[in-house]
Amino acid sequence: MKGDKNVDIQALKDIANKLRIDSIVATNASKSGHPTSCASMAEIMSVLFFHTMKYKISAPKDPSADRFVLSKGHAAPILYAAWAEAGLFPVDELKNLRKLDSDLEGHPTPRLNFVDVGTGSLGQGLAVAAGMAYVGKYFDQTPYRVYCLVGDGEAAEGSIWESLHFASHYKLDNLVVIFDVNRLGQSEPTSLQHQLNVYDARLKAFGLHSLVVDGHDVSELVKAFDEAANTSGRPTAIVAKTFKGRGFPGIEDLDNWHGKALGAEGEKIIKVLQSQIKNNTVTLKPKPPTAEAPKVHIGDITLSSPPSYKPGEQVATRLAYGTALKKIADTNLRVIAMDGDTKNSTFSDKLRNAYPERYIECFIAEQNLVGVATGVACRDRAVVFASTFAAFFTRTFDQIRMGAISQSNINLAGSHCGVSIGEDGPSQMGLEDLALFRSVPTATVFYPSDAVSTERAVELAANTKGICYIRTSRPNTPILYPNDEQFKVGQAKIIRESPKDRVLLIGAGVTLHEAVAAADKLKAEGVEARVLDPFTIKPLDEEAVVKHARAVGGNVVVVEDHYQAGGVGEAVLSAVALVRDIAVKHVYVREVPRSGPPAVLLDKYGISAPHIVAAAKAVLKA
Amino acid sequence: MKGDKNVDIQALKDIANKLRIDSIVATNASKSGHPTSCASMAEIMSVLFFHTMKYKISAPKDPSADRFVLSKGHAAPILYAAWAEAGLFPVDELKNLRKLDSDLEGHPTPRLNFVDVGTGSLGQGLAVAAGMAYVGKYFDQTPYRVYCLVGDGEAAEGSIWESLHFASHYKLDNLVVIFDVNRLGQSEPTSLQHQLNVYDARLKAFGLHSLVVDGHDVSELVKAFDEAANTSGRPTAIVAKTFKGRGFPGIEDLDNWHGKALGAEGEKIIKVLQSQIKNNTVTLKPKPPTAEAPKVHIGDITLSSPPSYKPGEQVATRLAYGTALKKIADTNLRVIAMDGDTKNSTFSDKLRNAYPERYIECFIAEQNLVGVATGVACRDRAVVFASTFAAFFTRTFDQIRMGAISQSNINLAGSHCGVSIGEDGPSQMGLEDLALFRSVPTATVFYPSDAVSTERAVELAANTKGICYIRTSRPNTPILYPNDEQFKVGQAKIIRESPKDRVLLIGAGVTLHEAVAAADKLKAEGVEARVLDPFTIKPLDEEAVVKHARAVGGNVVVVEDHYQAGGVGEAVLSAVALVRDIAVKHVYVREVPRSGPPAVLLDKYGISAPHIVAAAKAVLKA
Repeated sequence: MKGDKNVDIQALKDIANKLRIDSIVATNASKSGHPTSCASMAEIMSVLFFHTMKYKISAPKDPSADRFVLSKGHAAPILYAAWAEAGLFPVDELKNLRKLDSDLEGHPTPRLNFVDVGTGSLGQGLAVAAGMAYVGKYFDQTPYRVYCLVGDGEAAEGSIWESLHFASHYKLDNLVVIFDVNRLGQSEPTSLQHQLNVYDARLKAFGLHSLVVDGHDVSELVKAFDEAANTSGRPTAIVAKTFKGRGFPGIEDLDNWHGKALGAEGEKIIKVLQSQIKNNTVTLKPKPPTAEAPKVHIGDITLSSPPSYKPGEQVATRLAYGTALKKIADTNLRVIAMDGDTKNSTFSDKLRNAYPERYIECFIAEQNLVGVATGVACRDRAVVFASTFAAFFTRTFDQIRMGAISQSNINLAGSHCGVSIGEDGPSQMGLEDLALFRSVPTATVFYPSDAVSTERAVELAANTKGICYIRTSRPNTPILYPNDEQFKVGQAKIIRESPKDRVLLIGAGVTLHEAVAAADKLKAEGVEARVLDPFTIKPLDEEAVVKHARAVGGNVVVVEDHYQAGGVGEAVLSAVALVRDIAVKHVYVREVPRSGPPAVLLDKYGISAPHIVAAAKAVLKA
Repeated sequence: MKGDKNVDIQALKDIANKLRIDSIVATNASKSGHPTSCASMAEIMSVLFFHTMKYKISAPKDPSADRFVLSKGHAAPILYAAWAEAGLFPVDELKNLRKLDSDLEGHPTPRLNFVDVGTGSLGQGLAVAAGMAYVGKYFDQTPYRVYCLVGDGEAAEGSIWESLHFASHYKLDNLVVIFDVNRLGQSEPTSLQHQLNVYDARLKAFGLHSLVVDGHDVSELVKAFDEAANTSGRPTAIVAKTFKGRGFPGIEDLDNWHGKALGAEGEKIIKVLQSQIKNNTVTLKPKPPTAEAPKVHIGDITLSSPPSYKPGEQVATRLAYGTALKKIADTNLRVIAMDGDTKNSTFSDKLRNAYPERYIECFIAEQNLVGVATGVACRDRAVVFASTFAAFFTRTFDQIRMGAISQSNINLAGSHCGVSIGEDGPSQMGLEDLALFRSVPTATVFYPSDAVSTERAVELAANTKGICYIRTSRPNTPILYPNDEQFKVGQAKIIRESPKDRVLLIGAGVTLHEAVAAADKLKAEGVEARVLDPFTIKPLDEEAVVKHARAVGGNVVVVEDHYQAGGVGEAVLSAVALVRDIAVKHVYVREVPRSGPPAVLLDKYGISAPHIVAAAKAVLKA
């Protein structure tokens, strides 16, 4: 067996048992956690971290180093143990597992300097790993490799199969997926239990080089990882037959031991494991990376040319999104676009047409789209913009939520928001996307209302940390701003004002234009109205909202192409929550809409200019 | 070929071309829509609706009839055409496609009497179909069959593979999945194009009986559907090689024709298609169902015994959920529970332990969980409760959104909400679930704060139309209510009041108990506080909120174990939006939390009693 002679098999076995012991000690100290889920993958971790992977203890997130993603995040203790045993921090620190003042949390997060992304919501790690592998192969063109460990329970998640397809379609031969098939889920055996042949057949059908191994046989694992390294043109799947609680007498392969510290039983088991270790002082140094990843610059991104629209021109914000995306790609080689087969609707194809090598088609698999985006953006390798219809980001809420935990800097653009899309009907209308993105603690939410501000939103998003969301609309809307207008995150614009204003109208996208029309109508009836464009919904320019609300006597109307909860209206209500003497009339879509022409739908669902006029009159009486 | 002699092949061919013509006419009339996506499936629809399926035009949703789910909902025109040609309504009505006053919307919704669920967000139809098939095989035990047509583009969605696995695991041999492999997506060819062998291998590996056919050969399709009917022990997949725009000269199999009406070109093509029809007056009557599905009663569901807790007892609301679920299952045979391998955490296992045949384990595949729930509930066959951690419903937001469009009556229960879960850390904490569910227009959101109210929430949910969500908590909390307390949707409870109250504290779940503790502390400092338990967050008892807020002088504190956007706080703000003189101090989780003990986290993230006291003092000064 090639390479075997240079491998200290016994040392790897010993380390595996040390990792088991560490996992018991840590979870016993925290009185919670998943030691049995760790035990099934002890040999895999030993071989990966002490034989196969090339990395530096001095710089765990070095862009040149191999990456490891623990998709089954609940096995965190053994990940922490591997880094501790490799020398990153004292093994004794593992006893701080799950303590408030320790970053050794119940599931891994990037608060730890050796973790790229948060895991723990199952089935998500592989998309991220595939994104990293895509960058390694196509952008960095550096031989670092990406390893992702997937639990058999989470292999039931469809997102895993989206990512497997993606990885094989793009021939990511620098990616290795290890399936830890330990047979037992949380509450009962997995549906496939130890049918390794079924996993193998599925993985082969999905285009992977698949190997079935005994996951507790260190020699087999060494050989399998070597074979993976020598496989080109497709990713490798290592289907490891393992046992939950392996090496824990009276617990191994038994149900009802998921997510439980072993307590006093654990103390006995530690002695058994200890007795199997030949050399208790064994250490193996990780091999360093073999080549340097290129240095990249992803800051200070600018449009290659300022917006250039004519006053009165009608341009859809989704089109301006595509225009701006291409313009920032002009000035930075690491601006990447991704889409889920909607690129000719979101206009992400503008970047693809100019720079096809910097566009990643993800087909109709939105969970993988967002997961891959997270992976591509990792370790500050790229500035990613992923787009689809606003409605379809609901499909990826869990990935976005985990993106916040992952401290991810991805940019997401959702087109076709609201009833203003018209005839395609409710399944295609984004009417919950603001609620989704506003609930994400690290998010910035742009909702530009014309092409000029959309271009600047794209530019600002590229330079803003956290998850940025840009909401764009399908219909053409008039240009509102001069081409040289300056925009800032959290800075609203006043579109129209006079000292006599008695009501403040707040809209965004199509409804801002309805608000302007409503202001005209109100003026004709003798009521002056101020109109505010929030530009970003999160952070909302709370100071401007309160100031202008007060200036008009505390009479506010908010109108939005979105359902009631969580959108612009409730953002405004939060802004004025502590201010007495402000009344807000919120005008929004109240029911599941139907197909029809855009303008007719705006009126039918109560968010057109006449409804805003009525709302303004109502709030003046409130 | 068995059966062929009784089949009028030419008639089926003629009907296929009539369906093509109808699809062109309808989309030309609406000037939008997807005629080329219809053309690829014309023969499939002809054979299904005029040869294979058993149904009644007089009762399209008869529970005894075969079901058809058009997962690729954008091909709606040909679905409408099939029902029109079968005689349900005049073919001429197809010209009302996408018009505001017609139910023939851009994508199918149950506003139509022949549509069970809304489709249009891709990859979702199969889970619903699998749920229907599960009911047919295991609950109804009636030989109706379920047909689901899936586009090749949407076959990239992981949810499809979750559902395929589910269908084969549960041996749903009454389910047939037709893959319309027309090679072209919206913006470019699909990743697999016409690699029928790859689809076939994947489907076989996923446990289906898979057949590759020429999707435009009526005889082959007849034979394939007959073979499916004679296949037992597993579902059948029919992988149909088709061409997008089949039969449309100059358009067939060409890119850039997705989602476009054909206009004048269409008029010419209609003539070509017309010339291929041998008998323009052809009609074929559908065969009726062969057996009656059982009559079921799913109304007036009650707990088999009232709550029975002792004052001062500490019970987690998630445990009370399981207790109540078993109790309503005692009294109604069609109460079904489902879970995604968290049943020993959500306590849905209480039902399973009592009635294993009425529990469906969905393993770790939440999208399929919710989709199957929708299918099980369809045609009023069952009362479904599907549970997982609150956080993981984010994974299913698109399914829930489509559930609203589908007029679905499913009940969803999310346990482990908020930071109060403790050491497992942020990936397991539901902190966005209220934003999610409040944004759903058909939703009722229960957030019970003790075991008594939780049991009543379950009972009420079982009898409430639309999507019901029950948010439960992990920690034990004290009993608040007597066992005979009555609860109503939209009716808040006052936990504590006096005529001297100066501030209104609103909490729910763990934070209601913190609010009670805060009221004690405030009283000790001379400030009387009223405490309100909203019980349902949607609908919120707006009248009670406003009344009590006014009664205490307009000083309100809302505290919740949730992020800021879209939760209890913004629901309260919406309730008081038009009322001047009310100030609301909202206390919520402001950042991505970390692992730690529950009580410590409540305090660290600012939602414990001392923070509520501080908030009360702040609002009194506002």
